[in-house]
Amino acid sequence: MELPEGLPPKQLLKVLVLGAGNFGSCLADHLADVDHKVYIWSREADVVEALNATHRNPRYLTEHSFPEDILALGPEFPDSQIINHVDVLLFAIPTEGLRETLGKVRDRLNHEEPPLFIFVNKGIEVESEALPLEIIADTCGVDIARVSTFVSGPSFAKEIVRRQPTTVSIASLSPEHAQRASDLFHQPWFRCYTNPDPVGVELAGALKNVYAIASGIADGMGYENNTRAGLITRSLAEMTRVGTAYGASPLTFLSLAGVGDLFLTCSSTTSRNFTVGRRLGEGEQLQHIIDTLGSVAEGVTTAKALHSILRRLEVTAPIAEGVYSVLYEGRGAHEMASELMSLPPQSEIDLPVHISKPVQALMAKLGIKEGDLSPRASVLSTIGPD
Amino acid sequence: MELPEGLPPKQLLKVLVLGAGNFGSCLADHLADVDHKVYIWSREADVVEALNATHRNPRYLTEHSFPEDILALGPEFPDSQIINHVDVLLFAIPTEGLRETLGKVRDRLNHEEPPLFIFVNKGIEVESEALPLEIIADTCGVDIARVSTFVSGPSFAKEIVRRQPTTVSIASLSPEHAQRASDLFHQPWFRCYTNPDPVGVELAGALKNVYAIASGIADGMGYENNTRAGLITRSLAEMTRVGTAYGASPLTFLSLAGVGDLFLTCSSTTSRNFTVGRRLGEGEQLQHIIDTLGSVAEGVTTAKALHSILRRLEVTAPIAEGVYSVLYEGRGAHEMASELMSLPPQSEIDLPVHISKPVQALMAKLGIKEGDLSPRASVLSTIGPD
Repeated sequence: MELPEGLPPKQLLKVLVLGAGNFGSCLADHLADVDHKVYIWSREADVVEALNATHRNPRYLTEHSFPEDILALGPEFPDSQIINHVDVLLFAIPTEGLRETLGKVRDRLNHEEPPLFIFVNKGIEVESEALPLEIIADTCGVDIARVSTFVSGPSFAKEIVRRQPTTVSIASLSPEHAQRASDLFHQPWFRCYTNPDPVGVELAGALKNVYAIASGIADGMGYENNTRAGLITRSLAEMTRVGTAYGASPLTFLSLAGVGDLFLTCSSTTSRNFTVGRRLGEGEQLQHIIDTLGSVAEGVTTAKALHSILRRLEVTAPIAEGVYSVLYEGRGAHEMASELMSLPPQSEIDLPVHISKPVQALMAKLGIKEGDLSPRASVLSTIGPD
Repeated sequence: MELPEGLPPKQLLKVLVLGAGNFGSCLADHLADVDHKVYIWSREADVVEALNATHRNPRYLTEHSFPEDILALGPEFPDSQIINHVDVLLFAIPTEGLRETLGKVRDRLNHEEPPLFIFVNKGIEVESEALPLEIIADTCGVDIARVSTFVSGPSFAKEIVRRQPTTVSIASLSPEHAQRASDLFHQPWFRCYTNPDPVGVELAGALKNVYAIASGIADGMGYENNTRAGLITRSLAEMTRVGTAYGASPLTFLSLAGVGDLFLTCSSTTSRNFTVGRRLGEGEQLQHIIDTLGSVAEGVTTAKALHSILRRLEVTAPIAEGVYSVLYEGRGAHEMASELMSLPPQSEIDLPVHISKPVQALMAKLGIKEGDLSPRASVLSTIGPD
């Protein structure tokens, strides 16, 4: 594999990565490699110690040797001095832990000159059904939420540390801040595409895991290429319909964070979500799968939150509801598949006419009026079905 | 694998399939299996004889046993009596042979009560750069073109004959005729989704082969999952941009004929287009690949037609142009990949503002005014970039 020359960063920045899991570690590696000053926080003492002493992460990407000038911090949460010393805060922690972490950041932050906030987590907070954008507004205030940036796309960490060419969406309500995040990350082997629709990007990142379970179920039932390609396409149409009803732009589902990540997740036959589906398709009981898988696959909890959101939006999503019924209502995978296949034929793309738009409530919360958004979103909100 | 019960056809029809290749044969099998009366024409005497005597096709799907009541005709072209006896003409011949075949049909056809015209070929006629819709208008007249229907989607023939669940787009300028074609084919294991944009469906079917070459090149260079998913996504954005500039609906690229078939083609590592790309990525010379591959991969000729169309539309398509430069300008695959990776970062979805719309000329030829089209197309034509 040959790569073109790297680009010099437009500006060398100080970056604090919060979380030393797969994705936090690989991005710390990527940024330190082009000479940004990188700090990485872990709440695990052994990870902090190993990163500083041996430049290895003992839990993730264990084969990889990290740049020596990354400084690991922890296990205590970084203090006010370091939080206000850096130019960028990069949140690489699961959505379920985001509210607590943001609360700690808020208490330490100098709100006069906040750093650039970048988020790489995906998913919906289960209890509140809130997207990260809303959690940020709740904890750090609307001014921070309006300029926060979100990185998402088809990006296995183990390939990023080997400089495999990777492309991501960088979304923000503020084009200027999306551009700043793109300037930070962009390299020939890590191409960044800015995107004005963080709500769509976050929704896509959460929903794709439910559809990866569906893709796994089809695989477990013995279905092959036609079925998988068709199922991914219909999942994309369904995600687009749900996202549009929610108030996101349908075009976001054509993005790296949308269709790109959906492809990767639904084709990655060793991933946790796909594996849960495959074993359901082979006839195993969910409880047995969860007991033996060790950890819960994200799509299993997202399917539950989505079920409730769908009822609220009054939008049909037969694939997601089929997955829900197998996971939570004891329906057999074969019975569910037969039902999906027996639905009446229909028109191909049917976006909702009556858009209930939870996003309007969220934008009101952020103090943003419809006219303030990029023109694309408002033009697109006029697209109806045939 | 279990399948739900089949549906009784709404109406038993007489169907003449023109062409006994992979796709013609599998659709003849599918239709005869639910009791339609199926005739299939081949210009190869041995195929006609074998299909009637042994119910096997000696050249395609050779393992498969076809229903005994399929009647094979040929090698002479079917006469006027049979052409006007059937309810449906199903064209399963390559685009390059379409003009000649349609000329023969026109000479034999009773234009007062024409059968339903269904097309499954993909691609652009190389010399004229015409889509099938235009070839139909040129040969059989605009009345036939306006009600012709087009079947496209992720559908390997070898999986269709094993009743693997398959989903396709059925496109027509006439919703009524799209519905008639859907009624003919639709079964739980062969789900049909109607679509109002035959131009987009045809363009997608042609362009995907060029992007499959790009996907193969990346594979041959040793790039893995992140790169393939990213490349497919950026190819989709590019196809959508080209299609929109051409005058197709951007939403069509979200369809089974769009993203569905693109995904299947770019992931099918044994296909001819992917193989041409992979061997280029591994450093082989094109001429040597063509000499040893036995037949020309469709994407190789489409890349040339597309290059000329792109110049006419004044739309940028760096991936397709990169493939063209490797195929026809002697550029190395590695050099091309480096150039693509070194392009400046950009906004994610950039549909063209100034739509030159060759489709307007085509619609004028068909006697269709913009207001006559389905509302979706006209609403969508207003979508501009940010």
